[in-house]
Parts: sequence; C-alpha cells; structure tokens
Amino acid sequence: MDAEKLVEKVASGEIKLHQVEKYTDKRTATEVRRKALEKKLGIKLEHIGHYSIDPEQVIGRNIENMIGVVQIPMGVAGPLKINGEYAKGEFYIPLATTEGALVASVNRGCSALTEAGGVKTTIIDDKMTRAPLLKCPDARRAREVAEWVKANIDYLQEKAVSKVTRHGKLRDVKPFIVGNNLYLRFEFETGDAMGMNMVTISSEEIMKVIEEEFPDVKYLALSGNMCVDKKPNAMNFINGRGKTVIAEAIIPREIVEKKLKTTPELIAEVNYRKNLVGSAQAGSYGFNAHFANIVGAIFLATGQDEAQITEGSHGITLAEVTPEGNLYISITMPSLEIGTVGGGTRVPTQREALSIMGVAGGGEPAGTNAKKFAEIVAGAVLAGELSLLAAIAAKHLAKAHKELGR
Amino acid sequence: MDAEKLVEKVASGEIKLHQVEKYTDKRTATEVRRKALEKKLGIKLEHIGHYSIDPEQVIGRNIENMIGVVQIPMGVAGPLKINGEYAKGEFYIPLATTEGALVASVNRGCSALTEAGGVKTTIIDDKMTRAPLLKCPDARRAREVAEWVKANIDYLQEKAVSKVTRHGKLRDVKPFIVGNNLYLRFEFETGDAMGMNMVTISSEEIMKVIEEEFPDVKYLALSGNMCVDKKPNAMNFINGRGKTVIAEAIIPREIVEKKLKTTPELIAEVNYRKNLVGSAQAGSYGFNAHFANIVGAIFLATGQDEAQITEGSHGITLAEVTPEGNLYISITMPSLEIGTVGGGTRVPTQREALSIMGVAGGGEPAGTNAKKFAEIVAGAVLAGELSLLAAIAAKHLAKAHKELGR
Amino acid sequence: MDAEKLVEKVASGEIKLHQVEKYTDKRTATEVRRKALEKKLGIKLEHIGHYSIDPEQVIGRNIENMIGVVQIPMGVAGPLKINGEYAKGEFYIPLATTEGALVASVNRGCSALTEAGGVKTTIIDDKMTRAPLLKCPDARRAREVAEWVKANIDYLQEKAVSKVTRHGKLRDVKPFIVGNNLYLRFEFETGDAMGMNMVTISSEEIMKVIEEEFPDVKYLALSGNMCVDKKPNAMNFINGRGKTVIAEAIIPREIVEKKLKTTPELIAEVNYRKNLVGSAQAGSYGFNAHFANIVGAIFLATGQDEAQITEGSHGITLAEVTPEGNLYISITMPSLEIGTVGGGTRVPTQREALSIMGVAGGGEPAGTNAKKFAEIVAGAVLAGELSLLAAIAAKHLAKAHKELGR
Amino acid sequence: MDAEKLVEKVASGEIKLHQVEKYTDKRTATEVRRKALEKKLGIKLEHIGHYSIDPEQVIGRNIENMIGVVQIPMGVAGPLKINGEYAKGEFYIPLATTEGALVASVNRGCSALTEAGGVKTTIIDDKMTRAPLLKCPDARRAREVAEWVKANIDYLQEKAVSKVTRHGKLRDVKPFIVGNNLYLRFEFETGDAMGMNMVTISSEEIMKVIEEEFPDVKYLALSGNMCVDKKPNAMNFINGRGKTVIAEAIIPREIVEKKLKTTPELIAEVNYRKNLVGSAQAGSYGFNAHFANIVGAIFLATGQDEAQITEGSHGITLAEVTPEGNLYISITMPSLEIGTVGGGTRVPTQREALSIMGVAGGGEPAGTNAKKFAEIVAGAVLAGELSLLAAIAAKHLAKAHKELGR
Repeated sequence: MDAEKLVEKVASGEIKLHQVEKYTDKRTATEVRRKALEKKLGIKLEHIGHYSIDPEQVIGRNIENMIGVVQIPMGVAGPLKINGEYAKGEFYIPLATTEGALVASVNRGCSALTEAGGVKTTIIDDKMTRAPLLKCPDARRAREVAEWVKANIDYLQEKAVSKVTRHGKLRDVKPFIVGNNLYLRFEFETGDAMGMNMVTISSEEIMKVIEEEFPDVKYLALSGNMCVDKKPNAMNFINGRGKTVIAEAIIPREIVEKKLKTTPELIAEVNYRKNLVGSAQAGSYGFNAHFANIVGAIFLATGQDEAQITEGSHGITLAEVTPEGNLYISITMPSLEIGTVGGGTRVPTQREALSIMGVAGGGEPAGTNAKKFAEIVAGAVLAGELSLLAAIAAKHLAKAHKELGR
Repeated sequence: MDAEKLVEKVASGEIKLHQVEKYTDKRTATEVRRKALEKKLGIKLEHIGHYSIDPEQVIGRNIENMIGVVQIPMGVAGPLKINGEYAKGEFYIPLATTEGALVASVNRGCSALTEAGGVKTTIIDDKMTRAPLLKCPDARRAREVAEWVKANIDYLQEKAVSKVTRHGKLRDVKPFIVGNNLYLRFEFETGDAMGMNMVTISSEEIMKVIEEEFPDVKYLALSGNMCVDKKPNAMNFINGRGKTVIAEAIIPREIVEKKLKTTPELIAEVNYRKNLVGSAQAGSYGFNAHFANIVGAIFLATGQDEAQITEGSHGITLAEVTPEGNLYISITMPSLEIGTVGGGTRVPTQREALSIMGVAGGGEPAGTNAKKFAEIVAGAVLAGELSLLAAIAAKHLAKAHKELGR
Repeated sequence: MDAEKLVEKVASGEIKLHQVEKYTDKRTATEVRRKALEKKLGIKLEHIGHYSIDPEQVIGRNIENMIGVVQIPMGVAGPLKINGEYAKGEFYIPLATTEGALVASVNRGCSALTEAGGVKTTIIDDKMTRAPLLKCPDARRAREVAEWVKANIDYLQEKAVSKVTRHGKLRDVKPFIVGNNLYLRFEFETGDAMGMNMVTISSEEIMKVIEEEFPDVKYLALSGNMCVDKKPNAMNFINGRGKTVIAEAIIPREIVEKKLKTTPELIAEVNYRKNLVGSAQAGSYGFNAHFANIVGAIFLATGQDEAQITEGSHGITLAEVTPEGNLYISITMPSLEIGTVGGGTRVPTQREALSIMGVAGGGEPAGTNAKKFAEIVAGAVLAGELSLLAAIAAKHLAKAHKELGR
Repeated sequence: MDAEKLVEKVASGEIKLHQVEKYTDKRTATEVRRKALEKKLGIKLEHIGHYSIDPEQVIGRNIENMIGVVQIPMGVAGPLKINGEYAKGEFYIPLATTEGALVASVNRGCSALTEAGGVKTTIIDDKMTRAPLLKCPDARRAREVAEWVKANIDYLQEKAVSKVTRHGKLRDVKPFIVGNNLYLRFEFETGDAMGMNMVTISSEEIMKVIEEEFPDVKYLALSGNMCVDKKPNAMNFINGRGKTVIAEAIIPREIVEKKLKTTPELIAEVNYRKNLVGSAQAGSYGFNAHFANIVGAIFLATGQDEAQITEGSHGITLAEVTPEGNLYISITMPSLEIGTVGGGTRVPTQREALSIMGVAGGGEPAGTNAKKFAEIVAGAVLAGELSLLAAIAAKHLAKAHKELGR
C-alpha cells in the first residue's frame, strides 16, 4: 500500500496506529502516523517530523507508534573539575531542559567548584535491585523460602542468572515478609548498564527455580514495589539503589565572597533552615534544593530513564562552616540509577551527549564508565546546589546591605 | 569575529561558553559552542546539531550555553475516550520516551478503557504553591505574622500579587512554624500556566510587603522547601500541589477476560499485594505501578518541567472487583504540576505535541486548557496502570493454566 | 456465690473472666479474678493486688476484667519556670517511668532553663480530629459530598454535634478523596478533654445526617485512619492534631558552660548531625532526641492515653548559636494529644499528679487547663532535650579535653 | 535530720528534690518529697503515696526524685491459644490501661481466635541496634572506616563487646554515610533483655577501639538517630529493630458470622479502605487499626519502656477472604522492642504481670523467654486488630440490615 493510502486508512481508523508497520517500513510508518494525525486532527506537526535519528533503529527498542521526536534544547555547563576515583579531570556536562537559567546556574557552580580545586566524589554502593512478590501459605513458609534463597545465592547465579545475562551478577538478597507475602529484594551488579532489563530477566529466571523448589508458593509479580522503581520511597532513600554517591567540596571563604557574593555562614544557614528543617517538616525524602533539576537535565540529554528522575531527587545536601571559616558542602545521592549502555543511551543524540563526558558505551573493565558517569552527575548536582544556595544567600545579603545603607 | 575564530577561542578557553553570545547571534553561538566542544574533545556531535527549533527563540528563555538539541523519540497512544468535565471525547496522547514497550502498553490500556466506555476524570483541587521562609525572633512572633497574613489575603493580592501578574491569584495561605522559622505556604490560582514563575514573582512581591510590615522578621529564602517543588514529600502527597486529579473506570469482566486475558480478581489481587502492601512496606509515596513512566513521557513530549516528574509519581492506584463482578480501577494523583502555556510549552515540537490533544496555549476561560490537559494525563496514567497490572495478572494466569495443564 | 467458689469456677473456666461481675461486686470480682489466675497458673500476684483506687470507679469506665493495678514509680522534676500564655510561673512535673536517669535528666534541664529565665511556650493550634470513611459511587460524587459538608459546618454542628456534646464544637473539615473513598477529617474544639470520645460520638452523629442526605454513599468506618490516631504519620506531623505547641529558650553561654559543661556550638552541632541529619536519613517523623521519654512519663503519671505517646514523639528540636554566642533551643510538637478531664485523668493517682501542676479537672474558661498543661509538657520536653543534647556534647568535650591533655 | 524538718527544707527550696537521699534513706526520702510537695502546693497526694513496691529497690535503678507511684488499672484478656515456636498453648494477657473497652475488645478477639484454633506466630528477625555518629574528614574516609568495621565484627566483639557484657553479641553492622557523617548501625543479640543498656555500653566500648584505630575521626554521639530509638521512622519500619514478628490466623466463616456478627468480606473491605488506603494517604508507618493500644497496655503492665510504644505502633494488618470463604488475618510488627529481664521488668507488679504469661526473668536458653513474650504480644495484637475491625464491619452490617428492613 502506498503511503498516502495508509495515511487515509490510519486517519479513518481502519488501520490502527500500531499496525502501520505491517504495511510498510518503520521510517515510512512514522511519517504515515504523523500525517494521519495531522489529517484527522487538522493540525501541523512539522517540527516533530524533523529529526536525524533513524526510526529503524529506535522503533521496537525505544519507542512504538513513533511519529517523530521532541527536540529538547541542550546546553552545556563546565568545565567542572572532578577528583573522583573514576572521573579525574575537567568535564563538560550536557543538560537538556526547557527551564531557563538552569544551565547558567549549574555553570556558575562548576566555575566556583573548579576554582576551589574541584569536587571530591565517592561511590558508597552500586547495585540494581528487583523484588519479586510471592504469596506464601503463611509467614513461616515465607521465612523458609527466604532462608533458602539467602543460602543459595551462588546456586541461583549459576542456575538462573548466568543463563540470561553475561553482565549481570546476583550479589545478595534482602527478603521482606508482610503477613503471607514475601518480597525478595535481589541485588545485582550490572556493569555499565543501568540494569533494569538485566535484573528483570534474571529475576524472572530465578523465579522459575524458586517455583520449582517451592511448589506451594505462588509467584505473583516480578515487582512487588519493594525494588523500588520510579516511586518516591524510604527503601531506596535508606538502603540505596543504583549508585549511592557523595560529592563534596571545600570552598575557600574568599571564593564564596568574591565569586558567589555571600558568606559561608549564610549558605550554611539557608541550607539548615530550608533543606534540613523545611524538608523535615514537609515529610520529604529530598533534603536538597533541586537535585531533580540537574539530574533531570542530564537524564534527558543522555538517554537515561526519565521516570527515574524520581529516585534521583532523593538525597541530602549539607553545608557547613569549617573551623577555618571556609564552606564545606556535600550532596549525598542514595539512589542514582544510570548507565552508559543500553536503553536510551543508544539513541544518537544521547550517545553524543555521553561522549561529551567521555562515557559513551561500556567501560574497561565493565562498570567503570557508569561509575565515572555517576561521579560526574554527582559533581554537577553539587554545582547546582551550591549555585542555588549561594544565590539565595547572596540575595539575602544584598538586601541586608541595602537596608543597612538606608 | 568570524565563527571559526570563535570556535578556536572557545575551545582554548579564552572565551567562555556563556560569553559566545557577546560576539555573535544566538544561532551561530550554538554552532560555535558545539564545534568548540567537538574540537576540544575530539568528538562528533552531528545529531545534536540537527534541529528545527530556533535558538533565537529558546536561548535565554529555556536554555543557556546551547549546543543543539536532544532528540527523544515520540510515539502516540490512543484514542482514549475521556468523560471529563473539561476533556470530553477521544484523545491521542503523545509520549516521548526511550523505554521500549511503554507506548505500546499505554496504547493497550487506552484501547481497553475506550472499549469499556471511557475514563471518568475529576479534578479535586488546583493550586500552585510557594512557601517563603522567614526567620522570626521567636515562635510567638511567627504566629503573629502568620495570623496577620491569613487575615490579609485580599490585601496582599491587591498590594503585591496584582502588581506583577495578571493571571495569578492568591487564594490562601497555610502557615507552618518550626521553632523560630515561619514557612508561609501560599496557594495561587495560575490559569493555564503550571505557574511556578508566576507564584515565584508574586511571593517575592508579597515578601516586600511583609518585610515592611514586620521589620523584625528576616525573610531568608523564597522557598523554604515546604512548597514543595521537585522533591518527593508527604506535604504534596497529602495536601496537594498543582492539579489533584482522579481518573476512574469500570471495565466489564468480559473485556478484562477477552482483551486483557485475565480476571478482575487477579488484577485486584496484584494491585493489593504490590501497589498497596508492597509500597506500604517500602515507605513509599507512590502506591502505584508506574505513574512516573506515563507522566514522564507526556512531560517530555509537551515541554513540562522534567524535574516535576518527581511529584507526578506520587499517588495511589486502586483496583477492586465490583459486586457485579467487573473491575473498578482508579488512579489518584495528588500533585500533577502542568500547564499549557509558558516554560517549555512554547518550544515548537512541544507545542505541536500539545496540539495533538487540543490543549496548546491558553484556554477560554483561562485555566480550562490546563484542566483539560490534566484530565487527559490522568486518563493516560490510568491506561498505563491498567495495562501493566493486567499484564502481570495475565502472566500469572497463563502460568497457572499451564501448570494445571501439566 | 461466695468468693472462694467463684475463684474456683473462674479458675476452671466454668465462669469466664468477664462474667464475674454478674455474681458479685466489682471489688470482689477483681479479687476473684486475680486469685483465680494465681490458682490456675500457680503464681503469686500480691503486689498487683495492692492498690488504693476503687474498682467500683474504674471498672467499666477505664478497665475491664480488672485484677488489680500496675504500680509505676513516680518521680518529680522541677521547678521549671514557664513563661507561657496559660502556664505562668514555676512548675513541678510528675514523671512515671521505670527508665533510670530519666527524671534526673529532665530535672537537670529544668534547672538550667529556670536559671536562664525560663521557657517561652506558644500554642500554634488546638484541635481534635476524626476522619470517617465513606465509600462513594465515584470520585465525582465524593467531591460533591465533600463540598456539601464544607458548606454545612454550622448546620452539622447544630443538627448533630450539639445533640451529643456540650463541650465539643465542630470547627472545620478537611476532605481527602482517594478513588471512590472519601475521608472527612473533622476538626473539633474539645475544651479541656483530649476529646477522642467527644469527637467519636459527634462524628457518629454527623454521619447519620450525611447518610440521610446522601443515601447512595456508604458510611464504612468511623475512622478511616486519616484522623490519625495512635499511628506514626505524616498527616499529624504536618497538619497537626491535639495541641501544636512550641517551647523555646535562650540559654546564656555562661550557663551552658558552667552548668551543662559544654558549649552552645557543640550542642548545636550534635543537634544538627543527630536530630536533623540522622533523622532525615532514617526517614523519621521524630527529628528529636527523646520526646517520647518525657511525653511517655508524663502521660503515664497523669492518665493520658499511653498509645498516643506515638504522636507525642513527633516533632523537631532546633539548637542554634545566637549572634551573641548564646544557645537558642526549641522544640516543636505538632500533635500533643492531652486533656485534664475524662479518660484516665479521673483515676485518683493520676488526678493527684495533675494537681501537682495545678491542672486537675476543667479550666475556667473551658480549655484553658488543657492548654496550660500542654505548655508545661512542652516545657518539660524542652528540658529533656536540652539535658540529653548537653550530656552528649559535654561527653564529647570532656573527651576532647582529655585527648589534648595527653 | 528528722523527716519533718526535711519536709520543711525541701518545701522551702533549701534542700533540692534530688538531694533528699543525702539526709535519709530512700523510703523516707520518697515520703519527704511527697509531703514537701503537698505542703508547698497545698494539695493532697495520698493515693500516690500508696504502694507496695520498695523505694530502696527502684530508686537509682528505675526512678529518681521518687514521690510514690501511679496506679494504673490492670485487666486480663484471654485465654488466647498460640501456636508459636516459643509460645505454645493458652495464655492470659495482662493489660494496664485507662481506656475503657480496650481489655474487653482484646478479650473478644482472643475468644474468636482461640475458637478458630489459635494464632500462628513467626519471628522473622531479632536484634537490638545502636548507631553511633562519627564526623569524618570526608565521605571517602567515612567509607574506609565503614569497611574496616564491617571486616572486624569478630575483633570488635572480642576487644570491646565481650569486655562489658556477657549476654550481648555483636552480630553485624550497617553503615550509613551522609556527607562527612558516618552512622554505624550496630546489630546485637541481647538474649532476654530488650537490650538498650547492653548495646549502649557495648557501642561505647566499640567506639574506643575505633577512635584508637582512626584518630582523625571524631566520635560525636553514641546515637546518631539512626538506631532508631523512640521515634517513628522508616528505618525500623523497613529494616526492623527488636523483634520482627508476624501473627496470623484463619477464622472460619462460621465463627466470623456467629461470633463476630459480620462477614469475612466486610472485614477485608474495612481493612483495605481504612488500614491500607487510609494509612497510605496519611503517610503512615502504621497500616493498622490500633497496634499501639495493645502494645501500650502490655508494655505498661510488664515494665517495658513506654517510649518504645512508638515503634511498637509500626506495622501492617492484612485481612483477606480465602478461596474457601474464610477470613485470613495477619499482623506484621517490624520493631517490637521488648524484654523479660532488666529495666522495668524487675519492679514487682510488672514482674508478676510477666509471670501471668510464664515469661518472667531469663529463658533457658537465653533469649527464649523474650521470644516467647514477643509471640504472645503479637498474638494479643492480632486479637485487638481482629476485634476492632470486626466491630466496625459488624456495625456497618447491622446498619445495612436495618436499612434493608425499612
């Protein structure tokens, strides 16, 4: 069928949106769907139809019912000096956003941090989790299953995980029992991948072994919401998921005063009353100013899973005056779920964005690229926090000065 | 200076990334920065450089240090029948994502819901909040300030808010006092805009009046983290922010069985053990399967603030078997922060995506477009939840059948 | 039947524990049950049988199946100077506990606070809540019901509340809707009573009116767990329940150094790292050191509901160094649920304990005694926090000194 | 000095409350203080002065500034049949409370459960935790310390713990790092003691070793609020503290209908809408009806720490209709902190109350008495939940019947 006819049939509903690929190639299908929508709705979608990525590559892997792309402006902040264990040197950070002033703000933070000697980053933990849900006859049986699983990690790795992935490694399990429900929170190492797919198929495979072993137990869902994926939650905030990473810096008082136009004392006070006390009273898992802004912009630029911005927003910012009168500032991110291979990282613009940081594709050895990336993200988040806190403090200071001047 | 020379100077660091606009127009500046990065880092950024949106339009409003765009694949799900108070009829939903299977899953949900007669949507509340932080001499003084503000809402609207915005209206204030800290959580109506800018400048203006009135009180930060913006938190989860919206449907048993290959009982059980019990034990504010996936994909497609996916992930899914044996399913979203004007909604691809739903730009009367949009998002989220829950339940059922077959 | 025979029949199970009052008076029944247990289990319960309170007075009102009493040691701390709006002057605080060192610790705090000029207390809010649960046909209907209720507070007061209580007054309602569930969080003024009974019977009565008005809505439970009573929760932590009260003091540096053997800086640091950062990372609603200890000991001494120690443990302690170098310390209690009449306050030892603070029975006007009591509790909690924080800080200081001495 | 003179001097303030023991024995000191208060305040404290416990035994161990006791009425519920791993057979449960109807309600639950064959109890975990707080030079150093500690559990047991306790055993450590703060959450086995004292002195001793090993790290506080003790929190709710215990039962439909006057379906529905959905929306860690009531009454009766009612209120109640149409009900308590030796369990009335359940003093082997006690408490809590849920459901049913009858 020619494209024009297809457009008509899709517009009329005779052919459904997801059936177009049956009649033509993926690129044409994309055009057909877009035009059918234009026709049916009487609108123009010309910019959505402007793209350089190849529908053949992304349809089925990253998208269905494709009609084109959204173009999100990408800016770059930096350079930012990072003294990490994986990221060492100066980095530029790609940020895709439509929020004006965000890139400029991060950029300013990078500048102050770099002048201060850079950011020290430390990865505390690194794991991807999946928590299948099993309904058991009762809690005692659930405990037995849990104990068997804890004692058979190596066996499960060999019998199940190793069959479906070369990169994923079952590291541990944390079982949780609620009444007759057993949630097995499996922890995996996933190399340079964020790892959700890997742990999903691995857990699926593990479940087969468990069902075989415990026929009286019903495997009900691959995720029992204790993984926890894409929901704000105390589990990840406390116990971590993905990378648990900390970035710190000491900013000499002079830089705070000259460059950021405020004082270490005021930054510490704003952080205390806003990020700690305010967030405490709000029942928040985000004791920070705006982790999500920086995490979000990097996630979009680099093809991370946008829904995981949720857990990326978890964490704590600290700001203190050192005995020497300088500013100590840190950010602690318990659950930064990122990767440099798989998922959206394969899409060309996203892959290019990763290449700006030198972290496109797999690392050598496996996992080092994702860890390097995590350190850079943490550094950027620190830059964003510093910049915003300083702006608030500077404003307050300026006002105070003005008032004194009256 | 010609572009080539600029590239060199930027690559060498002589000219900083944010200074390029001083020497040339915005479009050229974008090219210069990208090329400078390519040169400096020895990489290729050709796809990032492929775009149709106009740097002149977005630089300064939506982005700084622009180097191009990220292209995120956009698919479309639907049609979805919505029986809302603002959205009435069948809608197509644009989704930008790189997560394979997501669009297909939402699409399947739309199909089942539409066949079942559509989604009923109800907006419970609509407000944008900002909570400036004031340090007071003591709690008693904080209480006095709070009482004055509560008694002077109209006065503050006239004296402050009306001066800086035509669309924003101060509706109420909820004060919170912690020791000597006062957080004034202002609630505004913001028409079709998500409204953060509007409430920010309004709150700034209100603070001037309050500082004048209470010279002994120190206005410390425009946001004291009790707004709450871009952090997971109980405040918004309980008290709402942006649109508080509910979508519901009753799916006849036949459709559940034929189309979704499972039963109302199994869907209800999966929802109960996973979304309620699992999320409870995880200390979650997301008693749902994957709100963030659908919210995220729509946010990206339509130029919403990606960091607010965080609060968009808050909420509760319920699934129940009705006395008649059908499936009742609902999603409750306490804090959906969206708009159809301002911010990223002006970027051409994003605006086109809004036009697919018939909600680009301002509504008549003001606010109706954003409300219509909220109802569509809620409908799409319901489709996503239904589809995923049904898939889990169907899998379990299939397996159970297979086992019985043995 | 004579007591001895009764003992035998109860021991043999022929007469059940709760049936003994059918055969004899309450005092004898108490003896019979205790002796029956002694006989059946071969144990001695002589101390439990030693009491001066009158079974005739408490059985049926405060206890069933009575066998005697538990004797909990009561100590007293103070005097504590309070500069409240209701409590003015010096007070002794009765504390019933078995935790060694607790009374001594509170006592030390009282001494430091009194020497520093006393505690300033401020009541921010005062309400008792009940949130009945209604199942509605759908969310839109739930919204209609909610709107009707909001518009008919006075009507409900007259038609329902005033019929069953002279002291309770319906003040407001905050409705919450989750899918097809409506939770009506009613707020009442309850005078000097903690008020749970009053708001329970009032809500019951209100429900009759609502069921009459909305016959399609099913009233399912008098409490839908959004009241929230006797569970740790963000709702009360944020929105308050019972008394929301703050106690503050400024302790001159000299007193901190001489009396508490530490410095304002160290106390502020311990509070910051422990009560704010530690509690943040723990996902806590208790950003304090040990509110529950003091609240618990006062609750037991004065006949408050011990299960409400739960919400009494919610809250935030702040400690800061003032510009003058002194210590500012405050505690904020969002949900202190207490009364001076009703419930356990009528039991003689408990009533005597209330009389130590001059708050036994009803106030004039109603409510003032309970408010005065709340201020005293808040003052005592501040004393407890100060004392513990200072002890930690002093220990650290002593150790630092010792190390320097090496 | 004779007692009368002492009374005068205490009343006048010449001798302070805590100094009386310097001049006389503990029993007389108690009388003196009480009389001094009576004199000074012009009140009567005769009931407080009525007690059989010996001031010589409790002053210094359990109380200071003693003036007498509070008498809290004690009732008993049961028998309750428990099919535990430690508690096997029928038990009576002592409950000290002033809340009318509580004992009767638990009693009713016991009766239904026992008739249904009893409660199955399962202990999932058992540990007492303490989390000292160390300030480190930076996060990387904190990670080093954490790794060293994890690798030296046995060494720390030998070098530190074994020196100060015979019963406590260091089992594991879970480190948490926030910026430059290290919280070492030590897990101990504590035998039959609740264990707070034991883990406190053990942690103190461990800290000495760590300070020796890492002189650049500052040990700031013995508890960094991540233990977590006496505060509502996600840490214990998720990761457990004290006993993590589950109680379950299946109640035949006939018993539900005859004895509880309702149906399994209605109980399940009330539990779903109230304990799960309501508590979810309230941001609660208590997905239950009233754990705290039962926990509180047992804690008071048996000399447990009343402040730990807070964590005892954490947990989840499930109620489901089984395929056979019966009622499955369970309670999951993540953090039940109890003991049968030490603390308030030594006070005579409390010890007698423990003896009613056959759990006074240490078990053989150590720990078995506390575990048995935990199973009984869990069973009693299940009885309390069943009874209250059934009462709500029965009321609803009765009303429905009445309406049908109209």
